[in-house]
Amino acid sequence: MAISAGVVQGSKDVKIHDDFWNPFIELVRGTVIPYQWEALNDRIPGAEPSYAVRNFRIAAGIQKGEFGGMVFQDSDLAKWLEAVGYSLANHPDPELERTADDVIELIAKAQHDNGYLNTYFTLKEPGKQWTNLHEAHELYCAGHMIEAAVAYYEATGKRKMLDVVCRFVDHIAAVFGREPGKLRGYDGHQEIELALVKLYQATDDERHLRLAQFFIDERGTDPNFLIEECRQREGYSHFQKKQLQIPTVRQLAYNQAHQPVREQEVAIGHSVRAMYMYTAMADLAKLTGDAELLAACRRLWRNTTGKQMYITGGIGSTHHGEAFTFDYDLPNDTIYAETCASIGLIFFASRMLQLESRSEYADVLERALYNNVIGSMSRDGKHYFYVNPLEVWPEASESNPGRRHVKAVRQKWFGCSCCPPNVARLLSSLNRYIYTAAPEANNVFVHLFIGSTAQLDLAAGQVALRQQSRLPWEGHTRLELTAAPPDTAVTLSLRIPSWCGGRAALSINGVHADYETVNGYAAVTRQWTPGDIIEWEPALEARLSAAHPQIRANAGKAAIERGPLVYCLEEADNGRPLASLSLVGSSRLEASYHDELLGGAIVIAADGHADERDSWRDEALYRPYAEGRTPEPVKLQAIPYYLWGNRSLGEMTVWIRVNG
Amino acid sequence: MAISAGVVQGSKDVKIHDDFWNPFIELVRGTVIPYQWEALNDRIPGAEPSYAVRNFRIAAGIQKGEFGGMVFQDSDLAKWLEAVGYSLANHPDPELERTADDVIELIAKAQHDNGYLNTYFTLKEPGKQWTNLHEAHELYCAGHMIEAAVAYYEATGKRKMLDVVCRFVDHIAAVFGREPGKLRGYDGHQEIELALVKLYQATDDERHLRLAQFFIDERGTDPNFLIEECRQREGYSHFQKKQLQIPTVRQLAYNQAHQPVREQEVAIGHSVRAMYMYTAMADLAKLTGDAELLAACRRLWRNTTGKQMYITGGIGSTHHGEAFTFDYDLPNDTIYAETCASIGLIFFASRMLQLESRSEYADVLERALYNNVIGSMSRDGKHYFYVNPLEVWPEASESNPGRRHVKAVRQKWFGCSCCPPNVARLLSSLNRYIYTAAPEANNVFVHLFIGSTAQLDLAAGQVALRQQSRLPWEGHTRLELTAAPPDTAVTLSLRIPSWCGGRAALSINGVHADYETVNGYAAVTRQWTPGDIIEWEPALEARLSAAHPQIRANAGKAAIERGPLVYCLEEADNGRPLASLSLVGSSRLEASYHDELLGGAIVIAADGHADERDSWRDEALYRPYAEGRTPEPVKLQAIPYYLWGNRSLGEMTVWIRVNG
Repeated sequence: MAISAGVVQGSKDVKIHDDFWNPFIELVRGTVIPYQWEALNDRIPGAEPSYAVRNFRIAAGIQKGEFGGMVFQDSDLAKWLEAVGYSLANHPDPELERTADDVIELIAKAQHDNGYLNTYFTLKEPGKQWTNLHEAHELYCAGHMIEAAVAYYEATGKRKMLDVVCRFVDHIAAVFGREPGKLRGYDGHQEIELALVKLYQATDDERHLRLAQFFIDERGTDPNFLIEECRQREGYSHFQKKQLQIPTVRQLAYNQAHQPVREQEVAIGHSVRAMYMYTAMADLAKLTGDAELLAACRRLWRNTTGKQMYITGGIGSTHHGEAFTFDYDLPNDTIYAETCASIGLIFFASRMLQLESRSEYADVLERALYNNVIGSMSRDGKHYFYVNPLEVWPEASESNPGRRHVKAVRQKWFGCSCCPPNVARLLSSLNRYIYTAAPEANNVFVHLFIGSTAQLDLAAGQVALRQQSRLPWEGHTRLELTAAPPDTAVTLSLRIPSWCGGRAALSINGVHADYETVNGYAAVTRQWTPGDIIEWEPALEARLSAAHPQIRANAGKAAIERGPLVYCLEEADNGRPLASLSLVGSSRLEASYHDELLGGAIVIAADGHADERDSWRDEALYRPYAEGRTPEPVKLQAIPYYLWGNRSLGEMTVWIRVNG
Repeated sequence: MAISAGVVQGSKDVKIHDDFWNPFIELVRGTVIPYQWEALNDRIPGAEPSYAVRNFRIAAGIQKGEFGGMVFQDSDLAKWLEAVGYSLANHPDPELERTADDVIELIAKAQHDNGYLNTYFTLKEPGKQWTNLHEAHELYCAGHMIEAAVAYYEATGKRKMLDVVCRFVDHIAAVFGREPGKLRGYDGHQEIELALVKLYQATDDERHLRLAQFFIDERGTDPNFLIEECRQREGYSHFQKKQLQIPTVRQLAYNQAHQPVREQEVAIGHSVRAMYMYTAMADLAKLTGDAELLAACRRLWRNTTGKQMYITGGIGSTHHGEAFTFDYDLPNDTIYAETCASIGLIFFASRMLQLESRSEYADVLERALYNNVIGSMSRDGKHYFYVNPLEVWPEASESNPGRRHVKAVRQKWFGCSCCPPNVARLLSSLNRYIYTAAPEANNVFVHLFIGSTAQLDLAAGQVALRQQSRLPWEGHTRLELTAAPPDTAVTLSLRIPSWCGGRAALSINGVHADYETVNGYAAVTRQWTPGDIIEWEPALEARLSAAHPQIRANAGKAAIERGPLVYCLEEADNGRPLASLSLVGSSRLEASYHDELLGGAIVIAADGHADERDSWRDEALYRPYAEGRTPEPVKLQAIPYYLWGNRSLGEMTVWIRVNG
């Protein structure tokens, strides 16, 4: 597969109009962003204060007081501002824009004369700047400020915040580098790397790209910066408030700083840090044509998605360090699968798609989006799962400490935590993930089937189209060309989703059409005329999926999927214990739309069995197997995973034992 | 069931002569006790020093230096001395006895004039005695000293150590009590309660019994002693070396001090602490006829063994606090099942048997002994499992932090840890668990089928017998009466083990005999003559067992058992991943003796299937279930659980998926 470095681009001129997705995006705009603003201003009654805005007011000299919150508290305000930027681009809102402008004024006032910007170090540890990159998230917060600035600039054309971060980046470039006297280091939590790429794309300033490259290139080299830095602090830990042992190189795998990034073979350590880093690596591979970096991206992608990913698109098998463990270790009950990590995986997938249009990237992107990510949010937008389990036993979440991190109900969100703002910024920028274009090749790629209008610039001219999709409930997608360059052939590449099993029908203007399959895309090259209608129908049927035999946790089990949606059993429909239910492997899977179910959804019924339970005496834990009676036939009822936990507290499972 | 309080007694005049058990007991005598002595004296090259003997030498003024080791280091020396006592009773050894006498001299020299005895507080925190019962194990160490003293006194008749602990107990009784000015408290780690009962049985001094009763009665009453004590220390923690929050009543469930013991409904908290406490409660229920305490013992027994026990007799479902979790939560992979906890369960069971001869107590005792306990020790006596899992994936033990406490190989034992000395003292006193007698009823109970000679005193006179047993490989047991009271009917009660499914044949002098079943025992009452031969043959066949459907972890699975032994699959015999294997539910289970296998053992072969694995591509984690091919028939080979982990590093599982 040839790389078309520098030619495939994500599209920004895309507006979503989709029955399934608009409610989510509206929820973010109408509820999540305003609610978060109240939280950032400490105005949610009964909630822990965020301190985020207050910290900036104090740092700006407008208010008296002390710093509050975590060392990375600034990033909450930044993520909010970034989401606001995306939201304004989709949906102008003068009042919200005024609020954002005021916040930007405030941020600018908190900036030091030399460009430095971080309220924690301004207020709490002045003079200690850049002495604890390992723990203090200083460049991480800078990265989020940069992402916010770029999003806001792109939405509004206003430069104020962009200028603030450019000055900040000038300062950072004066502090970090290979020149004598500069810090040859990087942050403990990757984020600024991908942000600097975005900044470069907004500013065209090569220095921004080179700084991103510096951070990526330095990471994990020997002598290890984070270890040397820790020695300089004599092991003092910000979080522990005491001296700790100097970390070993091996321990720095948590930060993906145990070896140079180009040498890394497997996804390891804190999964959000890993995804943000891989995203930046893919960006740089594309922008610099760095073949070694590309090879590392492909390798890390393959390991992440081919060895360490849950069927829901969740990643991170352990809550200890919110981290990867090792190949095929995907426990369903002690899982982590943090929402932010799946969002990071979506970032990584989107950058890989910009490097090379292979449908596997979009398949994973879609899987994470429709399952892990939207499943994390409640229907009111105010309750979230940070951990997204595939198996829940509420009593175990309550009483077994090894499962206490797995919550059986979404938690109230009171402002300052990572996942909800990350969901907000992803959903409000969802329009960026649907299409890419290869301008020189005059090729338009449709990765996601989400109703939208789009304009894409090709060498031959502009293509505009309107997509209508019935996903996730039906496979039918209709594309209408509303503009096409005259006299030039243009290729339309429609993703053949993995879930259709290769069965996808194409028609053009009502006539069946053949297509060539290129890297998982149905490619049709012709001269298009405005008004051309393309109908694309990947087969969308409920199906049973099996897991790789090395995944011990899923042996003898199957999961129900339908199109991009993973399904699950809930106690509300199937009783308990769910473990006593099994599925008939050859069962017909009957799909039916239930419009009273949580906004309407297709439910799947399947033939199964319930192990006989009545003949057990309460005091007997074990008995001869032969005493068991034949399991009773039952009808199992599965709902989409993204809707779980919205009814009564109860058990849930994705993987179901197969018996018969 | 009537209680015969005060009349059923464990037998001490019992000698074991058994092909299966003698090697274990010999291993303790010939290897474990000498090796531990070296360890206690810091003479194991390359090992962390124990400091235990050294601490006593310093406290006795013989040597200069500082205290070393844990706050409860003294208990290691005490447990060693207790094991020596039992060993000398079975097998005189003048040199070992001399060593022990010297140790006792040393201990006596370290005792304060007022009777106080604890090297930690003597050397490291003089003046701080009895200020941190919650953490400092002061009465716990005293309890182990008392147990050692009683064992040594009973073995040798020498009073020196007994006198030392009696003086210590006098001091404790002067410090603790309900009188004004005394501490109305108890230890954070139960142990002294059961020890004081043993002391009472050796001394007949009622004050010793009353002190045990005091500690049991005070525990968990309001106001809570441990909380008040912690307030007095202003929350200072010995282990954390800083002030902590004052614990809540609920947190004291860890120490079973959250409510009065008579009100406790479920086994909760640290499982060893729980077992030691229940043991003392059962002792006191018997000795004082306390019906409320008896009811609590029965309730806690039922909960422990009927809701929270692994099939191996392991207890404690989580390593967080080495604790119980809740009913039916018995994960096989994140399990704790500490060796010491199963030993504590054996103590508890033996006391319940002394309260009331119901076979369920002996069934559990046997289950814990033949599986969890002896499985913890390697065949060289120098390597131990502290955690005894039912499912092992070595890579997960290495790389998933939630499973890191589960070791895939037995750990080298370097002296100062709880489980190995506990195994040593249990195995060297195993003769005490085989029989009980109800003297007034002239009833002799045979609980365990272990080759031995025994003398038991009944109201009518002495009964002596010789037991020969082929357990665990065959069910046949032969009892020869070597003495019997003339002219009086005596009842012999032979346990009908749960594993025989009620099928057990009795013959007397070669003639088939009927028996009455009383609480799970085959009771035969007659006038016996020396030379009478009783043959007892409970059906011993390999069988499949199922777990209660509320145990989610074992749904759809079965375990292989044979007689008292639980079996397991190992990678060495069956390949990997073991999870891809399943068992045919109706399979014949073929037992055959393999004399080359780890000292000789019966291996069980069963029909099973291996999920098809070859058609999986390495990079695919999930695929349509329909693509799976039919599983291949395979022969599964199971070995006794107690032998697992003695060959190459590999996977192990007790519970096996049933398919077909």
